[in-house]
Amino acid sequence: MELTVYLAGQIHDDWREQLKNNAKQRDLPIHFVGPQENHERSDNIGEDIMGKQPDNVYRDDAASSVNNFRTQVLLQKSDAVIALFGEQYKQWNTAMDASSAIQLRKPLILVRPESLVHPLKELSNQANVTVETIDQALDVLSYIYE
Amino acid sequence: MELTVYLAGQIHDDWREQLKNNAKQRDLPIHFVGPQENHERSDNIGEDIMGKQPDNVYRDDAASSVNNFRTQVLLQKSDAVIALFGEQYKQWNTAMDASSAIQLRKPLILVRPESLVHPLKELSNQANVTVETIDQALDVLSYIYE
Amino acid sequence: MELTVYLAGQIHDDWREQLKNNAKQRDLPIHFVGPQENHERSDNIGEDIMGKQPDNVYRDDAASSVNNFRTQVLLQKSDAVIALFGEQYKQWNTAMDASSAIQLRKPLILVRPESLVHPLKELSNQANVTVETIDQALDVLSYIYE
Amino acid sequence: MELTVYLAGQIHDDWREQLKNNAKQRDLPIHFVGPQENHERSDNIGEDIMGKQPDNVYRDDAASSVNNFRTQVLLQKSDAVIALFGEQYKQWNTAMDASSAIQLRKPLILVRPESLVHPLKELSNQANVTVETIDQALDVLSYIYE
Amino acid sequence: MELTVYLAGQIHDDWREQLKNNAKQRDLPIHFVGPQENHERSDNIGEDIMGKQPDNVYRDDAASSVNNFRTQVLLQKSDAVIALFGEQYKQWNTAMDASSAIQLRKPLILVRPESLVHPLKELSNQANVTVETIDQALDVLSYIYE
Amino acid sequence: MELTVYLAGQIHDDWREQLKNNAKQRDLPIHFVGPQENHERSDNIGEDIMGKQPDNVYRDDAASSVNNFRTQVLLQKSDAVIALFGEQYKQWNTAMDASSAIQLRKPLILVRPESLVHPLKELSNQANVTVETIDQALDVLSYIYE
Amino acid sequence: MELTVYLAGQIHDDWREQLKNNAKQRDLPIHFVGPQENHERSDNIGEDIMGKQPDNVYRDDAASSVNNFRTQVLLQKSDAVIALFGEQYKQWNTAMDASSAIQLRKPLILVRPESLVHPLKELSNQANVTVETIDQALDVLSYIYE
Amino acid sequence: MELTVYLAGQIHDDWREQLKNNAKQRDLPIHFVGPQENHERSDNIGEDIMGKQPDNVYRDDAASSVNNFRTQVLLQKSDAVIALFGEQYKQWNTAMDASSAIQLRKPLILVRPESLVHPLKELSNQANVTVETIDQALDVLSYIYE
Repeated sequence: MELTVYLAGQIHDDWREQLKNNAKQRDLPIHFVGPQENHERSDNIGEDIMGKQPDNVYRDDAASSVNNFRTQVLLQKSDAVIALFGEQYKQWNTAMDASSAIQLRKPLILVRPESLVHPLKELSNQANVTVETIDQALDVLSYIYE
Repeated sequence: MELTVYLAGQIHDDWREQLKNNAKQRDLPIHFVGPQENHERSDNIGEDIMGKQPDNVYRDDAASSVNNFRTQVLLQKSDAVIALFGEQYKQWNTAMDASSAIQLRKPLILVRPESLVHPLKELSNQANVTVETIDQALDVLSYIYE
Repeated sequence: MELTVYLAGQIHDDWREQLKNNAKQRDLPIHFVGPQENHERSDNIGEDIMGKQPDNVYRDDAASSVNNFRTQVLLQKSDAVIALFGEQYKQWNTAMDASSAIQLRKPLILVRPESLVHPLKELSNQANVTVETIDQALDVLSYIYE
Repeated sequence: MELTVYLAGQIHDDWREQLKNNAKQRDLPIHFVGPQENHERSDNIGEDIMGKQPDNVYRDDAASSVNNFRTQVLLQKSDAVIALFGEQYKQWNTAMDASSAIQLRKPLILVRPESLVHPLKELSNQANVTVETIDQALDVLSYIYE
Repeated sequence: MELTVYLAGQIHDDWREQLKNNAKQRDLPIHFVGPQENHERSDNIGEDIMGKQPDNVYRDDAASSVNNFRTQVLLQKSDAVIALFGEQYKQWNTAMDASSAIQLRKPLILVRPESLVHPLKELSNQANVTVETIDQALDVLSYIYE
Repeated sequence: MELTVYLAGQIHDDWREQLKNNAKQRDLPIHFVGPQENHERSDNIGEDIMGKQPDNVYRDDAASSVNNFRTQVLLQKSDAVIALFGEQYKQWNTAMDASSAIQLRKPLILVRPESLVHPLKELSNQANVTVETIDQALDVLSYIYE
Repeated sequence: MELTVYLAGQIHDDWREQLKNNAKQRDLPIHFVGPQENHERSDNIGEDIMGKQPDNVYRDDAASSVNNFRTQVLLQKSDAVIALFGEQYKQWNTAMDASSAIQLRKPLILVRPESLVHPLKELSNQANVTVETIDQALDVLSYIYE
Repeated sequence: MELTVYLAGQIHDDWREQLKNNAKQRDLPIHFVGPQENHERSDNIGEDIMGKQPDNVYRDDAASSVNNFRTQVLLQKSDAVIALFGEQYKQWNTAMDASSAIQLRKPLILVRPESLVHPLKELSNQANVTVETIDQALDVLSYIYE
């Protein structure tokens, strides 16, 4: 049984590549999708497509409309979601994607360092599983195939 | 027509009291509900009810289970949601509540200072209306009764 | 049994007042709600609340966000919808509200002059009932109480 | 990941062919579906199948029942929707399809010329993304595969 | 706790009056709603409102559009449904209402004479409860209040 | 685009075979599914699997539980439904399947002889398309591929 | 804000009376509903209404159809659910009601003695809150009103 | 037509292997999925992935979070569910899975020995089909392909 898993979360390091490589080594029949990982492209995509906007507020709104379109298409094609929080940045879109997954009945694995236990406690309580590393998240996905 | 509005967001100042007072001055037939605003009580509620937990991770999980129960009951009774973000704190539960509102088709007003435009852009793009002050949020609610 | 009915459609004449008066004469226990009928206020509401926008595109988007918020709140409180099309104007928001009503399983009465039969044929085919006058629409509502 | 996209909108020029050709040149793995584009056939389909109707009102209703059947089947098979408005015609069925897409949680790209900004403002505000050309719409679809 | 119960089924005898009288004698806080019981009015309602139709097929379609509007409004306001089948007539709209109730998660009591056990077996198997008399149906409703 | 279509309706003649043959001649990429067409097997399936039942009421209930299981599995896999009514028999399970299709948003084609216009008027009014012959039903399906 | 809470669970002691009394002492504006608590009546209700059944299997099925009707009506009217497990009996209908509550998005409090932690672990993990006493369950409900 | 069927129920004997073998002998194009059948692994999976927990309550909660994640992914991919109850153990997670299947509109076959008729009566009444052996359950699945 093949599965599609959406990888929500920060785009400032290569955690998605690590996770995909580990999944390949385990021979898991899982197809991973996720947001645009090129941060600059993600921030510019509104103006790249729709042209110069009046100021940064409108530039951000234009970019987020395209990013949200992408997310909605891919999230709806997914069988499960992994949402990873790092120690930097606000990451409210990660929280938004995780909460969307819960409401849309997409099974959710939350990955966060111990330092974020307190601020993420409500989201963690609603997630199916909460772990601290991407390897643990893969352990959970692998368990489906045991 | 009476409405119930859930006030999601930070519990570190008295913005809910201000908003309720202003609503009363405008004679709006709106009943406001929201989370526990006593921060200490909110953090302790798990242990207050279920007793001492092994450590802070479990203490936080116990508290958030009761807080999430309260939120789910009140959010489902609401006709609309206001979610306010301030400049401090992670506020991921606010993002979670706002995203839940969107997915549950509860009309959503987002309130955030200009400094948070960029990190909140995806959530703002999905909200019905985004404003910067609670008075503007009340203007939006008042408009229903014009 | 009291009912709430949303009156979607053009805001350029006083058809809602006529309909409400006729309903009152028939003693129907129906509460009518609808969009902002002051056209200027409806077009300005974005800037009235959020302040001056960069140009007309953004001004229109700001206004429509508040108008859509109002519509979503009131449509969800309604038990049925009447959508009236007149001979002038594009009235695409009327078509949008009527289609939303259908998808949200809100029973829908479409009112349109004979001259609009052809361009409204797909929407009419999905509506519960299509009539030509507001008095006929009231006849349909009255029939619930016979 | 293959996607199916429904192309709602006017059937009076060859914009769908242009869009499909451009998509082919970009090697996008997208399958496009849409309404009957032969206008005469679309208007006659009711009588073609069910026989002569009493007059034009019934002829239109018969045709629209078959057109709506086709639309419902194909819209439900789609992962996203593009709705294009041109400068002529009422195009209320386009507005109906776009609004259905929103309520059925099908991600929606709206394409409209600048001249239609004002009458389409409420629909545009609810769409995921609004652009002015079909090439921009394809840019948004392409972005999913970056 | 007050309940609203929709009484689907044939309109050729006074079973609804009997049931309402018995419910009153039992002091049940139940509000009963149902279809138009004046058979002639029910068949004529389309032409009564929309005027003369080309022939009986269109006359029937016009009438049923108004009857379906009424049914949809009242069924959605109901907490439970009683569907009664008698020994005469096709009663396919009763079967339609009963099946709608099931799919909309409205608890359903089916009332039918023993002679109709075989042709109603699939519907009976999906109903919550199947009985043979309206008094038994009231027994089931009364049981909620014990 | 391949489609699956559920063929609800009477099992007393070979209309499904005719329809499948005609579809094959038209090269339509449609997979047809439907109920058990061996009437005796359909009536006996409960006792065939679960053993002798106390009397005919229980025998019918046992059979219908298995038939309903089959219908629910296949209806949910289908993209559209054709429901055919003939001039004999009660056919209430056909009405039930047709109504389920409507509530589950499965596009529905109703096939019925002119003699059944009046008793089927409410169901016909809710179906997407109503025709009189299985060839017309195939015309509607073919139209999707034009 | 008044709430309705369904009390699922064993009917072999007076825990519901205790809970209602405690709620009254705390002045909570909560209306409690639940299953038939007279065990004999609950087991006999099928035969009481529908008459003598062939054997105990059919007697049980008749009774459960009426009990399930009652549960479905009351559960759907409720804003939250408390499910209590005791140390005796199978209590599979309690597990069924608790699971229904979760899938219907009714916030759920699970009450179970420590001895049942292991067999109830999957259900407890999906409940909003799990406690050991009915007083703790009331603490959770009271917290909504703080 | 290929189907996926989830096998809920006790993991203490090899009933799933027997069922799969019988299905293979009948050449049924059915893919079976289910829970982790290694009981020890199932109980340890929380600590295996997340490390040592404070005590058995937390160990059970950690394990059940991973087991529930697996179940939710696989149940949502399934077209039907078989839930088997044996004579030992509490099996409340089986009741939970069966009830989830009902609420998610997954057709359900219940398998239980005659000795469990009484305690399972409410669940049996809501299941599509109830049988006593896995061979009967396969008979029901086979019937789809006749």
